[in-house]
Amino acid sequence: MHMPGTSKGGLVFFVLVQIILLVLFAFFTDYDSKLLPNKGNATRDEPALVQKYPHFEDIHVMIFIGFGFLMTFLKKYGYSATGFNLWVAALVIQWAILMRGFFAMIHHGGHIGVSLDSMIGADIGSATVLISMGALLGRITPIQLLTMGLIEIVFFAGNEYLNVDLFRITDVGGSITIHAFGAYFGLACSLVLRPSSANAVTGENEGASYTSDIFAMVGSVFLWIYWPSFNSILVDGDQQERAILHTYLSLAACTVTTFCMSALLSKEKKFDMVHVQNSTLAGGVAVGSVCNLILHPWGAIMIGIISGVLSVVGYVYITPFLFSKLRLADTCGVNNLHGMPAVLSAIFSAIYAASATKETYGNQLIDIFPAMKQVGNNTEELEYVIGGYNRTSTQQGTYQLIGIVVTICIAVAGGVISGLILRSPLWNRLDHIDLHRDDVHWIIEEEEHEKKAHHNNTELHERKAHDNLNFIDS
Amino acid sequence: MHMPGTSKGGLVFFVLVQIILLVLFAFFTDYDSKLLPNKGNATRDEPALVQKYPHFEDIHVMIFIGFGFLMTFLKKYGYSATGFNLWVAALVIQWAILMRGFFAMIHHGGHIGVSLDSMIGADIGSATVLISMGALLGRITPIQLLTMGLIEIVFFAGNEYLNVDLFRITDVGGSITIHAFGAYFGLACSLVLRPSSANAVTGENEGASYTSDIFAMVGSVFLWIYWPSFNSILVDGDQQERAILHTYLSLAACTVTTFCMSALLSKEKKFDMVHVQNSTLAGGVAVGSVCNLILHPWGAIMIGIISGVLSVVGYVYITPFLFSKLRLADTCGVNNLHGMPAVLSAIFSAIYAASATKETYGNQLIDIFPAMKQVGNNTEELEYVIGGYNRTSTQQGTYQLIGIVVTICIAVAGGVISGLILRSPLWNRLDHIDLHRDDVHWIIEEEEHEKKAHHNNTELHERKAHDNLNFIDS
Amino acid sequence: MHMPGTSKGGLVFFVLVQIILLVLFAFFTDYDSKLLPNKGNATRDEPALVQKYPHFEDIHVMIFIGFGFLMTFLKKYGYSATGFNLWVAALVIQWAILMRGFFAMIHHGGHIGVSLDSMIGADIGSATVLISMGALLGRITPIQLLTMGLIEIVFFAGNEYLNVDLFRITDVGGSITIHAFGAYFGLACSLVLRPSSANAVTGENEGASYTSDIFAMVGSVFLWIYWPSFNSILVDGDQQERAILHTYLSLAACTVTTFCMSALLSKEKKFDMVHVQNSTLAGGVAVGSVCNLILHPWGAIMIGIISGVLSVVGYVYITPFLFSKLRLADTCGVNNLHGMPAVLSAIFSAIYAASATKETYGNQLIDIFPAMKQVGNNTEELEYVIGGYNRTSTQQGTYQLIGIVVTICIAVAGGVISGLILRSPLWNRLDHIDLHRDDVHWIIEEEEHEKKAHHNNTELHERKAHDNLNFIDS
Repeated sequence: MHMPGTSKGGLVFFVLVQIILLVLFAFFTDYDSKLLPNKGNATRDEPALVQKYPHFEDIHVMIFIGFGFLMTFLKKYGYSATGFNLWVAALVIQWAILMRGFFAMIHHGGHIGVSLDSMIGADIGSATVLISMGALLGRITPIQLLTMGLIEIVFFAGNEYLNVDLFRITDVGGSITIHAFGAYFGLACSLVLRPSSANAVTGENEGASYTSDIFAMVGSVFLWIYWPSFNSILVDGDQQERAILHTYLSLAACTVTTFCMSALLSKEKKFDMVHVQNSTLAGGVAVGSVCNLILHPWGAIMIGIISGVLSVVGYVYITPFLFSKLRLADTCGVNNLHGMPAVLSAIFSAIYAASATKETYGNQLIDIFPAMKQVGNNTEELEYVIGGYNRTSTQQGTYQLIGIVVTICIAVAGGVISGLILRSPLWNRLDHIDLHRDDVHWIIEEEEHEKKAHHNNTELHERKAHDNLNFIDS
Repeated sequence: MHMPGTSKGGLVFFVLVQIILLVLFAFFTDYDSKLLPNKGNATRDEPALVQKYPHFEDIHVMIFIGFGFLMTFLKKYGYSATGFNLWVAALVIQWAILMRGFFAMIHHGGHIGVSLDSMIGADIGSATVLISMGALLGRITPIQLLTMGLIEIVFFAGNEYLNVDLFRITDVGGSITIHAFGAYFGLACSLVLRPSSANAVTGENEGASYTSDIFAMVGSVFLWIYWPSFNSILVDGDQQERAILHTYLSLAACTVTTFCMSALLSKEKKFDMVHVQNSTLAGGVAVGSVCNLILHPWGAIMIGIISGVLSVVGYVYITPFLFSKLRLADTCGVNNLHGMPAVLSAIFSAIYAASATKETYGNQLIDIFPAMKQVGNNTEELEYVIGGYNRTSTQQGTYQLIGIVVTICIAVAGGVISGLILRSPLWNRLDHIDLHRDDVHWIIEEEEHEKKAHHNNTELHERKAHDNLNFIDS
Repeated sequence: MHMPGTSKGGLVFFVLVQIILLVLFAFFTDYDSKLLPNKGNATRDEPALVQKYPHFEDIHVMIFIGFGFLMTFLKKYGYSATGFNLWVAALVIQWAILMRGFFAMIHHGGHIGVSLDSMIGADIGSATVLISMGALLGRITPIQLLTMGLIEIVFFAGNEYLNVDLFRITDVGGSITIHAFGAYFGLACSLVLRPSSANAVTGENEGASYTSDIFAMVGSVFLWIYWPSFNSILVDGDQQERAILHTYLSLAACTVTTFCMSALLSKEKKFDMVHVQNSTLAGGVAVGSVCNLILHPWGAIMIGIISGVLSVVGYVYITPFLFSKLRLADTCGVNNLHGMPAVLSAIFSAIYAASATKETYGNQLIDIFPAMKQVGNNTEELEYVIGGYNRTSTQQGTYQLIGIVVTICIAVAGGVISGLILRSPLWNRLDHIDLHRDDVHWIIEEEEHEKKAHHNNTELHERKAHDNLNFIDS
């Protein structure tokens, strides 16, 4: 029997990775100062509340329940969807704390200070890997997946630093740095790992079952519910409340649109669970980069409607086209949920930035667009910003477009590099027959008892039906 | 092949509705002032935290996971339960922001200011439609459901305005304005749409499967967990903590009682999942209108016990009685979970209001019962209140009873009108054979591969068994 | 037909218990003063927010969704796992408020003041019963389970009072007082109720199905997500943020380790869902007693790695060994998830306490270890503390070890007593054939229609296959 899944070498390697992470944490990190006891004063006067913790927990649900269960839609890949999602995310959140910290050290020096803020950044960063995982779902081994995750986080942290710290683009919901990055990294990797033309048909297991599609709704609906938390966690006060409101309205309008489009584009005017599970969320992505700006409620609804149309059209026309023309597989359709809506969001961010005025935003203008600070020639004492301070609205809008273009380039480069590494003979690769199958990777109880009971039923011999419940006659 | 489900016309209509919502938001709404940047001061000193956001997210889980999954108990209707719940709620939250805003404009004029508070009110209001959906689950098309939702929100917002703003009843948990309203609106609609006597038998698909009942527990338990948030979100400080505590205790006592009653009223002393999924929640409804009052812990437990008995008795005796006598179908038994416990809550609210004293409540008395403010004849400068200020406790108790009676009348009137509209030939209606079936509305992968593999198995031909997992022999 | 499940007497008994709880609440409890209206001042100036409520709701999800769904992994016991978890927890949270309150009255006198804090203590306390339930899952009737819960809470509250109030051990995440207590109480009870040697084989229903294992992931992942809330709810400020961070890192490192160990210890290098569902959580237990101390991030990761190895080794070697040698059944493997990692946590707490210095902790030292307060001989005016004040670090470390030893002794004693009571002929007991089967306790729709349709299929007669979906040919 061949053993295509997990190799002993790969497992030992990731034990070592975990131990290396321990050593790196020991040498390079320590508590952020607010996590240390206040030694100066006998009487403490501190907030009892870790302010953003409830917000963080919402995102934590998105990462581990949301993404994990969204990917259970495949009928024979539910263990892997929930399990490998947990495994890879648990690995990359540790790695992301370090990598994001290393880039921050360029500015601030010293050790990497860890706190709830690090956890927030790490959870958000891990979403890039889970989005890329969606493109490749069922096509790579878990060892390949974890390897890709380690590589991706390096590129992610570099790109995030470049766009947010150096270009000073605005992207509080992460549409550019998370969604576009994760989608195009995963798609580039998928293209490098594409099947030979002989195998370029959808595998027999690449479909849903009735039960698996309802499990996927657990993930999808939790993502839908907590998306306002994802988009609003990095801002405060009125910016935060706008981010919450806009995401809520955009998702609602996107959902109504998605259902209508899903049935209208089908032959029999029936709804497709793929759209319901995924395209309903596109409104959260599409509003991400602009959610804290002054869009007005109708602006958020407009973005939601457009993104719903775009995403369903993507599933119906674009994904099949890419597969048939380029053999580019995209198991979860991340291009339709994350990729294209994120590009849409970046375009909107350019438009809204280019039209932002001091009349509308007051002093908050330079909170949101720090490079629009008017500092004259006095920039030497400020932090280094690529493109400089003193930006006009139009210049800032241009930088938003530069941001998405650079992000896609870095993501594609990183994805191609990852794909080339994963194709090396170091790693086991899955045969066509092993795609989208839990039994390649997991111990599955074969219900010996039932087999025995029915071994005379030759008609049933091949089926090994999975019965949730069968009563013993009493 | 007939196509009873979704018509192209209906889908296009709701695309238009979504566009009309966009236009209405553009013309009639804007940000509440606290969502705008503070332009006066260079230095901002605002709370970093959108205070009620975690509370709101709890309710958001109840609406989209709680109600959606509670309704997955039907064995062949899980896509529709979770999907149409999402669709209709996404539509009516937008509509509810507008309708509730229009009624508020009667008082305050100006535009409709939207904020997190609007989202809270909209999510709570959408519960009425989801409760009514429960009464009709599987019996109407999604186009009919959305139409009903649009109509219901108009009646809901009017009734809420009448009871809370004009009658000044207390109902912080929404037992009267949400639960009673939603249940009796849905039941009235169901009565108008009742089957012809020839079809008045339970459909063959109106039952649970082993898996669908466990999915329903996801919804039920999340409702149970977050119910204290639902009941307490509209109050602050000690009122909020009492609302939380009472809801917690009432639900706990109701749950213990429900299990005992469920088995005691069965033939073989076995538990019924219908009761466990639904009646355990009756304690949250029954305490809703009084949860912020001074009941003492034992008062909450007493209400929980009574509501558990009432709800199980409803499922065992009253629902079958109504169906056999009136052909009144109530798929989820909303009369037992929402209707009767809400009436119970209103009665308790009358009793507790009638016995409320300044000794017990201090100055909070007029926070809770604003119409009990003693203003002498000076009422002309106050807002208009039906029945006037200067109420005694007894008068306030009477108004609580007027509130529930008026609510039920408006709900029934609205439900009848909706039912008559939904019976019009404009809408497709479901035949008896199409009830409670996802395949009427959804694309369902028919597992072509399996069909092919087994097409020689004539014994299995009709069954098309749904196998979650079948291994390829290796 | 024999009726092994629930007896009328048992049901009536628990109706009485619920009524007795009502009476006890009426006589012994009242609101904590902060839940009463502020009668002194006309203008109120109170926090609008019930501060720890979001934290509490996270734990509430762990108790009712987390534990409930984690136990759905058995293929025919999903109704019981989710249902009886709800029932027993709803009962014992009421009882725990009273019992914890009675012990607090020893110190403070007066009535039992209830508030959100009581709810937090009660939810945490109920976890002990749910852990013990895990050891016995499927082997006892619900009436036996509830009886055990009532007994266990008495022992739990006494042990918690002894360790926290009298010994003054530190245990903010409850590894000692909750996890070790619950695990060894349950295992002791299981030992007393162990099968006769003739029946000492794993029952035919003691296994998972494909669907049931994915349901169990809902519970497991929610426990994983909210575990930082469980460990951090009893502390504030920087202690709380450390508790959050350490739990997060420990769980992440434990999860990576668990996956590697799971496959490395299997024959075919495949992953085992049992480990993924359970051992990934061991990091949360193992860091519990020390999570607010100054471990540094690497300390948390180290604890996570060790606990992951320990827990998987427990599942692979120790649980089968205990069953074969002692007939000690442990359905969920609570010794591996809760028992051994909790002992590990206690050992770490002794080490960290013994090395705690004023240099590191400042004045927080005596917040964390109150018995290290240097009071000279002046102890008569302080509260009574076993072992006294003026402790050195080493002494405090010793008390941490005394704490775990005493806890295990009390838990085992309580478990044995419970087991003896449950063996009395007063209670129905389950026959070997009735183990791990919902149909013993629950009404299950036998899909009469399908039976009728297929009654000629004699091959299928015995199977009564559970089909989630079968289409009517159209």
